[in-house]
Amino acid sequence: MSERAGGPAAMKPTVAPGRVKEVTSVSNPIVKDIRALALKKGRDETGLFLAEGLKLVLDAVDAGWKMETLLVSRARLPESELLQKAAARAVASGADLLECSEKVLAAVARRDNPQGAIGVFHRHLTPLDRLDPGADGLLVVLDRVRDPGNLGTVLRTADAAGARGVVLVGDCVDPFSLETVRATMGSIFAVPMARASEEAFLAWRRRFAGLVVGTHMKGDTDYRAPNYAGRPVALVMGNEQAGLGEAMAGACDTLVRIPQVGKADSLNLAVATGLMIFEARRSVLKLAEASR
Amino acid sequence: MSERAGGPAAMKPTVAPGRVKEVTSVSNPIVKDIRALALKKGRDETGLFLAEGLKLVLDAVDAGWKMETLLVSRARLPESELLQKAAARAVASGADLLECSEKVLAAVARRDNPQGAIGVFHRHLTPLDRLDPGADGLLVVLDRVRDPGNLGTVLRTADAAGARGVVLVGDCVDPFSLETVRATMGSIFAVPMARASEEAFLAWRRRFAGLVVGTHMKGDTDYRAPNYAGRPVALVMGNEQAGLGEAMAGACDTLVRIPQVGKADSLNLAVATGLMIFEARRSVLKLAEASR
Repeated sequence: MSERAGGPAAMKPTVAPGRVKEVTSVSNPIVKDIRALALKKGRDETGLFLAEGLKLVLDAVDAGWKMETLLVSRARLPESELLQKAAARAVASGADLLECSEKVLAAVARRDNPQGAIGVFHRHLTPLDRLDPGADGLLVVLDRVRDPGNLGTVLRTADAAGARGVVLVGDCVDPFSLETVRATMGSIFAVPMARASEEAFLAWRRRFAGLVVGTHMKGDTDYRAPNYAGRPVALVMGNEQAGLGEAMAGACDTLVRIPQVGKADSLNLAVATGLMIFEARRSVLKLAEASR
Repeated sequence: MSERAGGPAAMKPTVAPGRVKEVTSVSNPIVKDIRALALKKGRDETGLFLAEGLKLVLDAVDAGWKMETLLVSRARLPESELLQKAAARAVASGADLLECSEKVLAAVARRDNPQGAIGVFHRHLTPLDRLDPGADGLLVVLDRVRDPGNLGTVLRTADAAGARGVVLVGDCVDPFSLETVRATMGSIFAVPMARASEEAFLAWRRRFAGLVVGTHMKGDTDYRAPNYAGRPVALVMGNEQAGLGEAMAGACDTLVRIPQVGKADSLNLAVATGLMIFEARRSVLKLAEASR
């Protein structure tokens, strides 16, 4: 997946090692600042976000994401080599290390039984023009997606299918919320994401030479009919309630529909997007390739 | 979809009309009893569950589900013909009608801006032996599914694809929780559901003459390879963390895998189940059929 270049540039100047602190109180000002990242306001003010899980944090650092702070479980640190490794990596990369009580970790993660490691990362988006679908790659375009879980699941599916990027158009839910990051299962660090106003997307679309396929309740083409193979494809998916906006639908080469019995438009957005993604990649995804 | 017979038997004796009450206090004992249905204990003790939304409640009654109580918004009742219709239907069917303050509705639904109607229904499961896949229908079998949202989304997808039933095997999450019912978007009333211990399922499987396909991390068959057409099919999906149990995997005719790049097992369960369901129904689902 190296060609997808999910993370920000990995080239970094030599950095001073981070500091190590022990934090056991939820009312500690550092903890308060970090807890504020659960809210969009806190993320927008700082440009930071939270990601839970040891493996996920290590993968993110490997992919070149800049970590500001690593919170680890003080109780679990002595017995976990992997946790120690992550802590050492964090400090070496310039991140601060907070050795925390379980109570602090639970307060930051907003749930009981939190993971033993929580990373504070710098947000990173790719400019729309820098997303590269390659000669036959896939971009997934979401028009005003509103549900954090749906967005996270779409990012996860896009990653699993080797999509080259996800574009968030218009008033989308924040991809850096705890809930979305959780639902991505780490794919937020692997799939390049761009954000664009509808206007900016439509301008980009005019320059995009590939196939643009939108799903639409009134689409009269079966989603399996377009020839997705051998060219760049952008899949455009509409908002959970309203579907695809008029201008967005008008910008598509083809409007397709997924055949269903019963109600006309009854699939969950993440499931519908999954079906579209795997259909568009149908000729490319082979089992032999995936086993490695 | 009439042949799927989602609801319980629609034949009912003549019933006495339900009572009408006005409820404005959250501490009203009736409201307390209904709020207890948010917990599994409350549902298990009473055999009742909650479903939100006016259209959904009406559809459920149409499908023959027995409603115990209907809560409607007192403020919205005078201006909504549909709400009045639902209220009249409820009372005629023998259900009690509670005209509630917004505060009471929000407390029952456990969220702000609740829907204007919440129905209290009798739970209903179909015995495993009574699920009828027909000559070429699909059953979806879930082995210890744990996430309420995943289960709800799978029920919704199964409904959209015309599956003939969903089987919950082993220690599955409760399909009648608020969160699952919400995620089904009404499909909980449309798709027959059965519950079985692993042992009971394995015994049923020995009598099942159709094709049993399981998804498995170690499956060496592409999920598109089996010939799903023209016979009854049971799709078996494993638990979110652990995948398919050994005995369950052993009971399958074929173990398949969905090709992915990157990590081996990185799709969300509801998305993976969606891909499997639409693959199994691929020859049957046509756009012309769906437009009506």
